[in-house]
Amino acid sequence: MEKNCSSETERKPIRCKAAICRSPGEPLVIEEVEVAPPEAWEVRIKILCTSLCHSDLTFWKLDMGPAAAFPRIFGHEAVGVVESVGEHVEELREGDTVLPVFQPDCGECRDCKSQKSNDCSKFPIAHYIGMPRDGTSRFKDSNGQPVHHFLFVSSFTEYTVVDVANVVKISSDIPVEKACLLSCGVSTGVGAAWKVAEVEEGSTVAIFGLGAVGLAVAEGARLRGASKIIGVDLNPAKFEIGKKFGVTDFVNPAACLEKSVSQVIKEMTDGGADYCFECIGLASLMQDAICSSRQGWGRTVILGVEMHGSPLSINPNEILRGKTVTGSIFGGVKAKSDIPFFVKKYLHKELNLDGFITHEIGFQEINKAFDLLLQGKSLRCIIWMDK
Amino acid sequence: MEKNCSSETERKPIRCKAAICRSPGEPLVIEEVEVAPPEAWEVRIKILCTSLCHSDLTFWKLDMGPAAAFPRIFGHEAVGVVESVGEHVEELREGDTVLPVFQPDCGECRDCKSQKSNDCSKFPIAHYIGMPRDGTSRFKDSNGQPVHHFLFVSSFTEYTVVDVANVVKISSDIPVEKACLLSCGVSTGVGAAWKVAEVEEGSTVAIFGLGAVGLAVAEGARLRGASKIIGVDLNPAKFEIGKKFGVTDFVNPAACLEKSVSQVIKEMTDGGADYCFECIGLASLMQDAICSSRQGWGRTVILGVEMHGSPLSINPNEILRGKTVTGSIFGGVKAKSDIPFFVKKYLHKELNLDGFITHEIGFQEINKAFDLLLQGKSLRCIIWMDK
Repeated sequence: MEKNCSSETERKPIRCKAAICRSPGEPLVIEEVEVAPPEAWEVRIKILCTSLCHSDLTFWKLDMGPAAAFPRIFGHEAVGVVESVGEHVEELREGDTVLPVFQPDCGECRDCKSQKSNDCSKFPIAHYIGMPRDGTSRFKDSNGQPVHHFLFVSSFTEYTVVDVANVVKISSDIPVEKACLLSCGVSTGVGAAWKVAEVEEGSTVAIFGLGAVGLAVAEGARLRGASKIIGVDLNPAKFEIGKKFGVTDFVNPAACLEKSVSQVIKEMTDGGADYCFECIGLASLMQDAICSSRQGWGRTVILGVEMHGSPLSINPNEILRGKTVTGSIFGGVKAKSDIPFFVKKYLHKELNLDGFITHEIGFQEINKAFDLLLQGKSLRCIIWMDK
Repeated sequence: MEKNCSSETERKPIRCKAAICRSPGEPLVIEEVEVAPPEAWEVRIKILCTSLCHSDLTFWKLDMGPAAAFPRIFGHEAVGVVESVGEHVEELREGDTVLPVFQPDCGECRDCKSQKSNDCSKFPIAHYIGMPRDGTSRFKDSNGQPVHHFLFVSSFTEYTVVDVANVVKISSDIPVEKACLLSCGVSTGVGAAWKVAEVEEGSTVAIFGLGAVGLAVAEGARLRGASKIIGVDLNPAKFEIGKKFGVTDFVNPAACLEKSVSQVIKEMTDGGADYCFECIGLASLMQDAICSSRQGWGRTVILGVEMHGSPLSINPNEILRGKTVTGSIFGGVKAKSDIPFFVKKYLHKELNLDGFITHEIGFQEINKAFDLLLQGKSLRCIIWMDK
């Protein structure tokens, strides 16, 4: 008889350690939580490693509105192993190596069925503090009080429960800490270059903001054969880092003096970049990106969530002269088909993932990952659950 | 020996009748002008018929800025016959039936060589009051004073001189008054649906503004197999007219009452139209169009020139959820390859051109064409030069 690795815990709650955030901006505290067994269409996952993304920071600091929900278990980039599955879960079984992904890929709605969208319309974003189908929680703290989920994933815990629409089975050939990067940030950048912009061989690219997502755009553009990849960042140290991911030229807006950034980029690209990417989330930078794109066919992709709620103001004549502005959540990546493709690209030594990992720490030190990202010292810090 | 139809006039100035506008908004006056022979890369054309487009009205009324140049010969939709050609003109000869087109297709610049752009970068827009290569005029009035050109065409004259980059040879099988429509407005609309949006079979379309361009978008969308084509216009009479060009549904913003136009369109299209087109030139309408497009893949094409110089303000989150905003001059049409394609579609009885012609008049009555368009009574009024 085949060994059932989860026979002891299946259908029972699991008590384990989780890093809980009890109020906005406060350090996480490692506490014991009870993780309910997976319900229908759900999967309980033993997390192997996780990493911290800027969106975690954004919601961790948030102190107003319905999205500011505490206590909460953050974390949405991770790799784990399936511990058990609920009813109707056919595509996964115990022991599978999986990646949880915040963007569902339900396979049933108009968006998931279409090749043109990855913006699943089955699960409402209002449920982001619980499970996607009913908005409830699978976590209880030691007082028996529910703890909120985050972005349908919640990976800062030894075990989590995720909907099957948010889980991708991956090859066990890829080191888990490399695969972990594909769970959000790196896939967003590579996907934006590969799938949203469809960067072409020999084309010119300008990337506004060289954080992990911006560098992943560079990596995606490099893979697609762009001939010039211009990084735009206020931090001059980013140029050396960017070179590892294909950045060929660097513009520091603070050093442009009497010229605007878009003037400088237009001069460097004979009239404007073929593809521009905004990876910060500032309306003014989105405008700079559009201005820096080439008349006739320049395509600007917006990846950053505008951080002040400002509108994007465009001169309609720029659009009329053949420019395009587009955007996407998660880089247009359809989790279940595209992530395995990126894994293959890594295994074939085409996609550089190693360069994104700047730090590795144990779960007990999780607050150090917050400090490193807040101080701009890390790209990705891998947090190992068993260390 | 072959008859050379222009032997008497070749290389000599031609004296003929032209409708000159001497000051902004004033009726045109038919006067005698002298039309210089074509210089190198130029073609002198005997105009057979011409028609009036909204852009003529816009510049006719303009009383400020460098684009307000008088005296001027307006008109940029026409069909004619080549009278003579200048040095280096290889692709045309006397007697050819041709369409002058305001948007050059030089075949040499990066834009004209690329399939992605039709926005010729060889000839600067600043030269729009003269010939594209040197900005000078080929017209003199009876006092020997130069008369300005309009949009590289100037068709309200019995003879005009146009750069070879602005001339397309067409089949003589198509009636000239039908071909005339392809010179600007109808090609812009059909091209926007066909080439810029690439409307797909079974898709939903919303068109803001059912003038000739908007109706031509409907015709293009119908040809591409759209299943629902919603026309948006304040004039309820436009629905009956629109039906001839494939409009299946109609929204009158004035009758929407407590709902916004975008809410109504979202309800009609199960979440938003796949393709939206703004054909008026109002920033607020461009915003409505973007809001009416579907999250995930909705594509909004801007065709109208913003009439008040207002910026287009967009909520960046709309873009982030997979929407695209794009635009083009002349509907992305590359004159020399796409217009002959549209002519074929007409000759194969696929493209409806007949419905656009609402009036036909003689050259002497040209000011009547202005009245009809200003009063919203005409789509296209054909002006016959020999009547």
